[in-house]
Amino acid sequence: MQGVDPAWLPDGVFRPIGTRRTVLRGSGLLVDTVHGELVAACARYGGGVSREPGPYDLLLELDDSFSPDDAEGFTYERGDGRATVTASGARGLLYGFFHAVRLGEEAFLGEPVRETHRPAVGLRMLDHWDNVAVHPVMGQVERGYAGGSLFWEDGRARGDLDRVAAYGRLLASCGINAVAVNNVNVHEAEARLLTDRISEVAALAGVFRAYGIRTHLSVTFAAPIVLGGLATADPLDPEVRRWWAAATARVHEAIPDFGGYVVKADSEGQPGPFAYGRSHADGANLLAAALEPYGGTVHWRAFVYDHHQDWRDRTTDRARAAYDHFTPLDGEFAANAVLQVKHGPMDFQVREPVSPLIGAMPGTRLAVELQATQEYTGQQRHVCWLGPMWSEVLRFEPEEGSPVGELARGGLVAVSNVGDDPFWTGHPLAQANLYTFGRLAWRPDADAGGILDEWIGLTFGADATAGVRAVMAGSWRTYEKYTAPLGVGFMVQPGHHYGPSVDGYEYSPWGTYHFADRDGVGVDRSVASGTGYAGQYGKRWAEVYETVASCPDELLLFFHHVPYGHVLKSGKTVVQHIYDTHFEGVDEVAEARRRWDALAGVVDPVRHARVAERFEEQLRSAREWRDQINSYFFRKSGVPDEHGRTIY
Amino acid sequence: MQGVDPAWLPDGVFRPIGTRRTVLRGSGLLVDTVHGELVAACARYGGGVSREPGPYDLLLELDDSFSPDDAEGFTYERGDGRATVTASGARGLLYGFFHAVRLGEEAFLGEPVRETHRPAVGLRMLDHWDNVAVHPVMGQVERGYAGGSLFWEDGRARGDLDRVAAYGRLLASCGINAVAVNNVNVHEAEARLLTDRISEVAALAGVFRAYGIRTHLSVTFAAPIVLGGLATADPLDPEVRRWWAAATARVHEAIPDFGGYVVKADSEGQPGPFAYGRSHADGANLLAAALEPYGGTVHWRAFVYDHHQDWRDRTTDRARAAYDHFTPLDGEFAANAVLQVKHGPMDFQVREPVSPLIGAMPGTRLAVELQATQEYTGQQRHVCWLGPMWSEVLRFEPEEGSPVGELARGGLVAVSNVGDDPFWTGHPLAQANLYTFGRLAWRPDADAGGILDEWIGLTFGADATAGVRAVMAGSWRTYEKYTAPLGVGFMVQPGHHYGPSVDGYEYSPWGTYHFADRDGVGVDRSVASGTGYAGQYGKRWAEVYETVASCPDELLLFFHHVPYGHVLKSGKTVVQHIYDTHFEGVDEVAEARRRWDALAGVVDPVRHARVAERFEEQLRSAREWRDQINSYFFRKSGVPDEHGRTIY
Repeated sequence: MQGVDPAWLPDGVFRPIGTRRTVLRGSGLLVDTVHGELVAACARYGGGVSREPGPYDLLLELDDSFSPDDAEGFTYERGDGRATVTASGARGLLYGFFHAVRLGEEAFLGEPVRETHRPAVGLRMLDHWDNVAVHPVMGQVERGYAGGSLFWEDGRARGDLDRVAAYGRLLASCGINAVAVNNVNVHEAEARLLTDRISEVAALAGVFRAYGIRTHLSVTFAAPIVLGGLATADPLDPEVRRWWAAATARVHEAIPDFGGYVVKADSEGQPGPFAYGRSHADGANLLAAALEPYGGTVHWRAFVYDHHQDWRDRTTDRARAAYDHFTPLDGEFAANAVLQVKHGPMDFQVREPVSPLIGAMPGTRLAVELQATQEYTGQQRHVCWLGPMWSEVLRFEPEEGSPVGELARGGLVAVSNVGDDPFWTGHPLAQANLYTFGRLAWRPDADAGGILDEWIGLTFGADATAGVRAVMAGSWRTYEKYTAPLGVGFMVQPGHHYGPSVDGYEYSPWGTYHFADRDGVGVDRSVASGTGYAGQYGKRWAEVYETVASCPDELLLFFHHVPYGHVLKSGKTVVQHIYDTHFEGVDEVAEARRRWDALAGVVDPVRHARVAERFEEQLRSAREWRDQINSYFFRKSGVPDEHGRTIY
Repeated sequence: MQGVDPAWLPDGVFRPIGTRRTVLRGSGLLVDTVHGELVAACARYGGGVSREPGPYDLLLELDDSFSPDDAEGFTYERGDGRATVTASGARGLLYGFFHAVRLGEEAFLGEPVRETHRPAVGLRMLDHWDNVAVHPVMGQVERGYAGGSLFWEDGRARGDLDRVAAYGRLLASCGINAVAVNNVNVHEAEARLLTDRISEVAALAGVFRAYGIRTHLSVTFAAPIVLGGLATADPLDPEVRRWWAAATARVHEAIPDFGGYVVKADSEGQPGPFAYGRSHADGANLLAAALEPYGGTVHWRAFVYDHHQDWRDRTTDRARAAYDHFTPLDGEFAANAVLQVKHGPMDFQVREPVSPLIGAMPGTRLAVELQATQEYTGQQRHVCWLGPMWSEVLRFEPEEGSPVGELARGGLVAVSNVGDDPFWTGHPLAQANLYTFGRLAWRPDADAGGILDEWIGLTFGADATAGVRAVMAGSWRTYEKYTAPLGVGFMVQPGHHYGPSVDGYEYSPWGTYHFADRDGVGVDRSVASGTGYAGQYGKRWAEVYETVASCPDELLLFFHHVPYGHVLKSGKTVVQHIYDTHFEGVDEVAEARRRWDALAGVVDPVRHARVAERFEEQLRSAREWRDQINSYFFRKSGVPDEHGRTIY
């Protein structure tokens, strides 16, 4: 793995273990992986590792007498300068090992403790929007801002999988246990991964397996037609069902621990069961039945809406679509079918309410999908650490006492933000989003700030923690300040979605409007006078969102159309809030850049230079956002800035 | 040429000649071309053709005793049921032949006449924006709305050039005598047409030659570096000059009648002389010197402006750029260097003033460039016959008595609108733009309506003339009505430029703004208070454009920023004018579609169906334009429609 950026696993973090004596007990592939890590660390730092009983500073023990239900958990015990990790499953041992790595010297020297750790969410998954070949519009990785694919090159499988192994290691170290290797928009080339190109997926699965990661595949619902030559893909057709069963048997033969399928059906032009008068449940259950004998799962995405909407018609509301489509199907999905729901009702904007679908389908396993790739949050040219947003989402309680993090029984999924970029994620600081996702998926109620500090300490060392934290901790709110205001979203350039275009989606068929006129702005989604979307929530939140008086400021324009002179809870008018936050946002970027410059001696020079270069672009872009948004609302409202600042 | 749409040369138009006896006198390639036409027509209709003296109804005579200066002209004489065409040059004979074809029976049966015809403009040229290979963003033909290239397929020369011959024939029949075969944005593949791929150009030139058409080539100014391996492309560097001389000698060897080079330099990212501190004249003269020994010409495009403009800066004005850049160089260009100027100062909008550069450089040969390909006028999905616009441009007199048609001493050039579409131009009615261009280039003061009737009669027959005329004659003004109002331009979707986006270019770096706010709209280009652009015109027009009072309505927003309540010369306010014209425009499209439907029995069914299908899209798109523009200005101005029609 030479020549690959170690990200948050530089050699130094293995020093505390590498200088000590470790005894490793147990056998199997993952235990060998841990052994390899220990041998490398000890070779570098002079410690020792043994697989036989004997004296130790660190004991890592795979103990099969534990319950197999607890296969990912581990117990960590510390006292008298020694530590023990015990696990009943191999993954638990692997995660326990990385737990000790993260603790560093403290793994041995802290106060005596005995703790049991286990993940709150069983499936912690990354979806790669990898097109295999280069798509003429979307490139090789759709919404990929970190170079090309890790898995394919020039449309063919990479021979050298060292980089995939390094990636698997990073994922294991933050607790991710599943990867879907290709785009949910399945074009012709990727479709064949299911059949004659399955050996390419098997090769990736072989590498991931050593890191406790199961491999999943995105498939096209039309596969029986496209690949099988059948006349139909009707989910109730016996021949179609036989085709999927046979195809899945072959997949399982190539990949015994295959995770399952990911499907985007009847959405944005992808094929699906509607063509045959069947429901989403019929479609999902078809694939679930094929996967069931092998313990696989189908992830059926709930990102379904009318993308040929008429902007003139204010009664149609894209935000309503997922709930309207899927709640009537509650209880109809098979046990191994998971409905994968985006965390907000629209599409990964910098600020959205939590999707009302989450919590509304008690008879269905839901997975919640986050977006690590920064499609709408600066495309990895801007610093935008998403930890606080995700944390808010996962802690949100649709009904009191049931946070999203618990309702996501089908898993937490993130769209991956990595590529073949030297720093994995284009912007080196965007690695923190990947790490934070893994750690929050393990424990959705974890303190995001603590995870950030953990990532900074591992990546840059303790000396850099305060400085880098100052650059990153508030970066999501800063990004929100200089982009679309008060939850209204979608003021981006159409197509690529980078940079401002206030009216870019205002008269489009995509259902993404702000309705700004000379008097006011925002979308009325109330039950009383709007689209009724607010009524999709349970009583508690439906009441909060229904009225201008009770709706939180940060979501006001998502739920209501208000005059520019409306006074927010903050005491400012809407238009003055827009001006103020946009000036503040740019100032905060300039300040973050200044703080980053001051870290020149603390952070390694190559990484420092890359971030510094991205800050130039972020500052330029933030100014463009500020000036376009402010000019737009000044031209429309005619209200001057109270502070007389320059608006063009 | 079987299987190729005959466009305005269906067999039937040759019947009057084909039933008669013709004597053809003279020799050479073009006389053979005419002979071939006559033989085919007579074989079909029973007439006869002879190359020896004898009895005749039609005498076509190439008479070398005429002045060679008149090589494209011909004399046409008619009386007693017979006709004679006499020419001093072979092209003249070819054009005289097609003149007789256009006249039909009238060629023989009309009143006795004796007329001499000669083109007012020596160079009548089409520029093909052909990328040879498929460009990832622009496709194979940049701004091409009629399928792929006529010349290349999959990046390689087409083996079968029948279609090119059919194209040459069409061009000759309307008087076009030059073609530049590739895009002015010269990418890597096309660059090589100048050197190792010159045989492909020579093959095309060989086909065109038989129709009196000279072939030109777009080249990259960086060719000495890109193709020659030199360290510089500095126009004053002796080695660079030698490289161009040698390259041009090889071109001339392959194509003895080579027309010359077309160059877009220092514009929109293309390389040019600025990199070496040299002027556009230095650059053009470098290539002129290389072409001079062979009688070739360099066409140097004046489409130069700052495309990284800051929208915040209202003093920079893209409309000023060509004049500002080039007038100081007047007198410095070589005799065989032609400055090719777009007809308007911006970029082929549906309404622009005539470029102030035309008439402002008496010591320079100017060519005027029109755009037959409908980039901003409906992309060949909308009917938009451009004859009236071009006619207005060519008749415009920068100084009294000197119309643009006469000032274009360096030629009239149009960006071609053809491709490998069965109907040549995607929309069958868009053929009329190609035909009209050729005929106006021959005689810029010709009546455009007469040319349209001529085209309709040839293409559809006399029975269809009134019906098709009703669909087409007003189509440009209709298009103007439902798109950007009052000359302000550029309210299109960025990138592909199809469909409305009022603010699409409002905050962009392209210099294309309308500055609409809640009070008013338009760009102040006056000398007194604006960018000063109006002062680039001679006194006569500078005074007209300078004030709101004297500026014509149709250009008001191009020259002035006015309140929505400003009363136009028409008596309407600006905002009511916007509403009214947009409702009218859509009504006119619906009416044109109705009239087209009524032609179902008169026009051949395949052509009728294609146009009918395009009308569906035009009507949809026109409604979208109407509703977006009206909603935009209603939301901004708050002024309701006087007639209470629906604005969303």
